[in-house]
Amino acid sequence: MTEHIQFSSEKDALVLLDQRYLPGREDWFDCKTTEDICFALVVMVVRGAPAIGVTAAYGCYLAAREAQGMDGDWKENLRGLLDKIENARPTAVNLRWAVREMRGIWDAAGDVSLEDLCSTWLARAKEIHAGDIRMCELIGKFGGELMDDGDTVMTHCNAGALATAGYGTALGVIRGAVDQGKKIKVIANETRPFLQGARLTAYELHRDGIEVKVACDNACALLMKKGLVDKVVVGADRIAANGDAVNKIGTYGVALLAREFGIPFYVAAPVYTIDPETPTGDDVPIEDRDPREVTHVGDHQITPDGVEVYNLAFDPTPNELIAGIITEKGVLTAPYDEAIAELFR
Amino acid sequence: MTEHIQFSSEKDALVLLDQRYLPGREDWFDCKTTEDICFALVVMVVRGAPAIGVTAAYGCYLAAREAQGMDGDWKENLRGLLDKIENARPTAVNLRWAVREMRGIWDAAGDVSLEDLCSTWLARAKEIHAGDIRMCELIGKFGGELMDDGDTVMTHCNAGALATAGYGTALGVIRGAVDQGKKIKVIANETRPFLQGARLTAYELHRDGIEVKVACDNACALLMKKGLVDKVVVGADRIAANGDAVNKIGTYGVALLAREFGIPFYVAAPVYTIDPETPTGDDVPIEDRDPREVTHVGDHQITPDGVEVYNLAFDPTPNELIAGIITEKGVLTAPYDEAIAELFR
Repeated sequence: MTEHIQFSSEKDALVLLDQRYLPGREDWFDCKTTEDICFALVVMVVRGAPAIGVTAAYGCYLAAREAQGMDGDWKENLRGLLDKIENARPTAVNLRWAVREMRGIWDAAGDVSLEDLCSTWLARAKEIHAGDIRMCELIGKFGGELMDDGDTVMTHCNAGALATAGYGTALGVIRGAVDQGKKIKVIANETRPFLQGARLTAYELHRDGIEVKVACDNACALLMKKGLVDKVVVGADRIAANGDAVNKIGTYGVALLAREFGIPFYVAAPVYTIDPETPTGDDVPIEDRDPREVTHVGDHQITPDGVEVYNLAFDPTPNELIAGIITEKGVLTAPYDEAIAELFR
Repeated sequence: MTEHIQFSSEKDALVLLDQRYLPGREDWFDCKTTEDICFALVVMVVRGAPAIGVTAAYGCYLAAREAQGMDGDWKENLRGLLDKIENARPTAVNLRWAVREMRGIWDAAGDVSLEDLCSTWLARAKEIHAGDIRMCELIGKFGGELMDDGDTVMTHCNAGALATAGYGTALGVIRGAVDQGKKIKVIANETRPFLQGARLTAYELHRDGIEVKVACDNACALLMKKGLVDKVVVGADRIAANGDAVNKIGTYGVALLAREFGIPFYVAAPVYTIDPETPTGDDVPIEDRDPREVTHVGDHQITPDGVEVYNLAFDPTPNELIAGIITEKGVLTAPYDEAIAELFR
């Protein structure tokens, strides 16, 4: 697959494949300013915790470039711009991580010039970008070993190449298993309201020649009962210190149903998605998004005028429902609080 | 609400509010032939088990009228047309019930003329139509008594006025509770793929001034965990002799999640939705519908070209998950096999 996050030196811009219009249209979205970055994050031109982290890292560089053209104290201006990026979305810890990483570099650099800070931050953003792909490949290697030849794997939302710098976390596990010579079929839950499963997971697996079939989220219990699902693998937007995993709305239900039918449920995510500062899944802020994502599909309105909707974007899955957390450092298993404490020691 | 199923003597036709286009457009669809009736059933101009039964009853009358204009043996022609109606959709037992009811009347009438059969059948169809509304009102009365003042009730799909001749089964229970002076809020699961919850349940409750909020099917576990759901009430397309209830895809998952969170889960349906000839829910044929319902919303394509989808339209909910089956004869409770056997004794 073409890399969907590209830094263009020529344009001095971050160029993103616009995921709002996939699979119908492959449009590209240029980010040159902090406002562009925040818009891209909020409306989900780019989404997926690791991809959000990479985007935010480049966003800090773009904010520094923007600060060069602003009146007043550049340091104060830049801090304000970084705040905007950090607060663009509340749930994925990778966004906060990336901005704090850049702030840390700035602090450590002492009395650095803005021009030098720009260079340093761009180099670091490129490192985070490249590092993310390597982490996903390792997640794929470790996770692939947990899959059996002939498995049908259900996934929810898109934790694929499009949710990371490339290769994917949950879909990285599937790619890893396929790379290990295993035959794997995928059931992609369509994942209302944004339809990341129907639109994005189906798109990238089909392009890679991996067999994928889309199911409405409602079909989950029946498909599991019929014995059509061997394993579930999903990504995560934030993993708490106790191993609770916050992921796309609906994941919690899938995990409960998986337990009902004795199907192993795995979470795949890089270590920096784990936030030791968040004690449990219930402590993670759950984003309440624009109702229009529920009331409309494309330009097609589906609910009557005047009717309210819920659009909570994530839910926490308790650690006891998780068979393993697949990271680039290996597979964590229960008790997760100890495994995670050990990882950060 | 305007009656959505109307027999027009003037047109000698069954006139249906076209549910494919609600809530955006209120179009009416005239059925004058067996082909019109079958088309309306298959593409879901009209849907919902009781509404299907009423439509099929009028369909038999229209088939008899059609047989008057055909060459050859009218009895043979008419039997062929009735077969087409009976087989238009496989899951809802009310369709089969209505056609068998009409066949029974024909058998009992002996050497009847086609003209007389037409009159008899039209009169019976009108009785079934009027009787359905009365049954729903009784379901509403009995079910309403199970609801508490201040309850928030989750429902899946549309088992409302639009799924019956009027008033509704699951939504009849809500209307019954409201008529009893209770304050009830409703969470309507949007119910992919056909979106009966977002489009139809929201439409009819909002018109009646009952507070309704639409949620993506994916939000179910989180809303329940947050304590936002006091009870679940759904309809049924067929109830087996052991009390297993086959209803819209996703119902089974909702029932399992309701058990997880200790929320009572009720099924509301008229007695003729219970099929003593079907031993268990697993014996009910599950309709596999047109993939386009999943791949498209309106004209908007959401899945990539070439990717297959599941579109199983129903799932069976095992009797042990059901707190009560609310019928026009009262509320059945476990053990359901005995309660149902007693009802048909």
